[in-house]
Amino acid sequence: MKRVLITTVPFAKTNQLPIELLNASGIEFVINPLNKKLTSEELAAMISGFDALIAGTESINKYVLENTDRLKIISRVGIGLDGVDLNTAKQRGVVVTYTPDAPAPAVAELTIGNMLSLLRGTHLSNLMMHDRKWERIFGRRIPEVTIGIIGAGRIGGRVLRRLAAFGSPRVLVNDISPNLTIAPQLKLEWVDKETIFREADVISVHVPLTKSTKNMITMSELNMMKNDVLLINASRGGIINEGDLAVALRSNRIGGAAIDCFDIEPYSGELTEIDSCLLTSHMGSMSLDCRSRMEIEAVEEVVRYFSDIELKNLVPSAEYILQQER
Amino acid sequence: MKRVLITTVPFAKTNQLPIELLNASGIEFVINPLNKKLTSEELAAMISGFDALIAGTESINKYVLENTDRLKIISRVGIGLDGVDLNTAKQRGVVVTYTPDAPAPAVAELTIGNMLSLLRGTHLSNLMMHDRKWERIFGRRIPEVTIGIIGAGRIGGRVLRRLAAFGSPRVLVNDISPNLTIAPQLKLEWVDKETIFREADVISVHVPLTKSTKNMITMSELNMMKNDVLLINASRGGIINEGDLAVALRSNRIGGAAIDCFDIEPYSGELTEIDSCLLTSHMGSMSLDCRSRMEIEAVEEVVRYFSDIELKNLVPSAEYILQQER
Repeated sequence: MKRVLITTVPFAKTNQLPIELLNASGIEFVINPLNKKLTSEELAAMISGFDALIAGTESINKYVLENTDRLKIISRVGIGLDGVDLNTAKQRGVVVTYTPDAPAPAVAELTIGNMLSLLRGTHLSNLMMHDRKWERIFGRRIPEVTIGIIGAGRIGGRVLRRLAAFGSPRVLVNDISPNLTIAPQLKLEWVDKETIFREADVISVHVPLTKSTKNMITMSELNMMKNDVLLINASRGGIINEGDLAVALRSNRIGGAAIDCFDIEPYSGELTEIDSCLLTSHMGSMSLDCRSRMEIEAVEEVVRYFSDIELKNLVPSAEYILQQER
Repeated sequence: MKRVLITTVPFAKTNQLPIELLNASGIEFVINPLNKKLTSEELAAMISGFDALIAGTESINKYVLENTDRLKIISRVGIGLDGVDLNTAKQRGVVVTYTPDAPAPAVAELTIGNMLSLLRGTHLSNLMMHDRKWERIFGRRIPEVTIGIIGAGRIGGRVLRRLAAFGSPRVLVNDISPNLTIAPQLKLEWVDKETIFREADVISVHVPLTKSTKNMITMSELNMMKNDVLLINASRGGIINEGDLAVALRSNRIGGAAIDCFDIEPYSGELTEIDSCLLTSHMGSMSLDCRSRMEIEAVEEVVRYFSDIELKNLVPSAEYILQQER
């Protein structure tokens, strides 16, 4: 009987279909007994004896892979591949699949919600009101500001299309391969990142974590920005340098930030001390429908693999090449 | 020289044009020396000697009006007329103008932002993260839920049109005079309020405060609602009964609420003790552009009045009749 280790948690919490699919296929499974994001040591210690891994964002590095004995497939619940050493997996004959489309609508909605909170100061007012302080904060509306989107793919594109309903802000967009038809409702200006850093009032990053995006925004980039700029990161920790962001927020060098993902998760670092930083616990994809779809798609790939059915969401070879270049 | 009392605060804080307009017209003005929402006693004590009142949401009742000596015009910065005794003003020869369109875009944006926060639990996660608690909250997306809008006028209509960008939720709408073309992008179901109370996952009220809307939602209506319903009020305090709302939130009879306006402002009541209630300090119209537009439009009416130019935003007679019926 095939055995699957499911490391991503929560799993099948609100929709039992992923578990029903595994049961119906006669696949045995174990859900992460530590009920938290695993370290590579923890994962390496438990991976032996499993044929498949249904994975979250934890690191599946060379050390983990060297501790596998019969692993054949890693099925990522989500889109980010920064945790997976793709080329070592390939050398060891382990295929890697993912669910690139499922999380996008949920991340885009969280981004728009956080943008509106930052622009109006509702997160600050909520903190003050629960402290019985009444202070009417002046905000700005979307059509009043210049919005900078770095990364206009599945998620950034959805953010742009939702923005269009709020009027016509000036929108600056940067992407390594611009898709000029991504948001026909808006007049987009395709620019370099530095133009976004210098001219945008709100900057949201929607890029994968790679060697070239890590530390994309450090103090030198923060110092190019407007004094009241608002930053949003619902992609991956490390793209905006956490320490530099904290310094910039504490000194009021920038206006505020909404951060959903962190270098080390669960996060309990110094941003928790800064009221102007709206913090959420990696909840970008955590809508009932998107999370269920991600889990179901990841399970379906495992079922296909063991039923010798063609896989639908194999990680494309370009991702392997990208990791080799690092 | 004509003298204007400006009671609404903040005033001309971020845009000096309202003050420049008054100066250019040779109108003398005094800005609220108490720098807070006035009681009717405070307003009655200071109104004598003024020809015009540029007003906020404070009560301009019979007692206040009886203490005017040369008042000719009340120019409301905003749309709500619940504070103004229109018929007594008329009897005393005082005209009343308002700025019905200016606040609508800002209130609609705050509403959508609060809806996204409630649906994803970002306000809760932010409170927990600042307390160093990591808990990934499952949320819902707009297209997954049934949204109920009570009042589909200037603000409710804008909320509906912005919602359309997020997909196709089921949308239930109630209005005393349905405008069937208000949001052509959505398939709206025009229903009675009880259907909204029973079937909606998110309910947002966008109605004026009148005798018939006061206490529109009390415990008996809350008891009709789904256990995880989310309520939004960015219109006027009192439409959702504050005490009943607190009871329903504390007992988890409902899922959450976002409340921007209160019976008594500044607010420091029991909702401040309830984390599931996202609280803001009457900030619906507080975007730089909308607030400036409201102030400028209110000043322009006063300038027109004293220059014998036809007024643009006289309160319509229907509002006077509505108050007589109370």
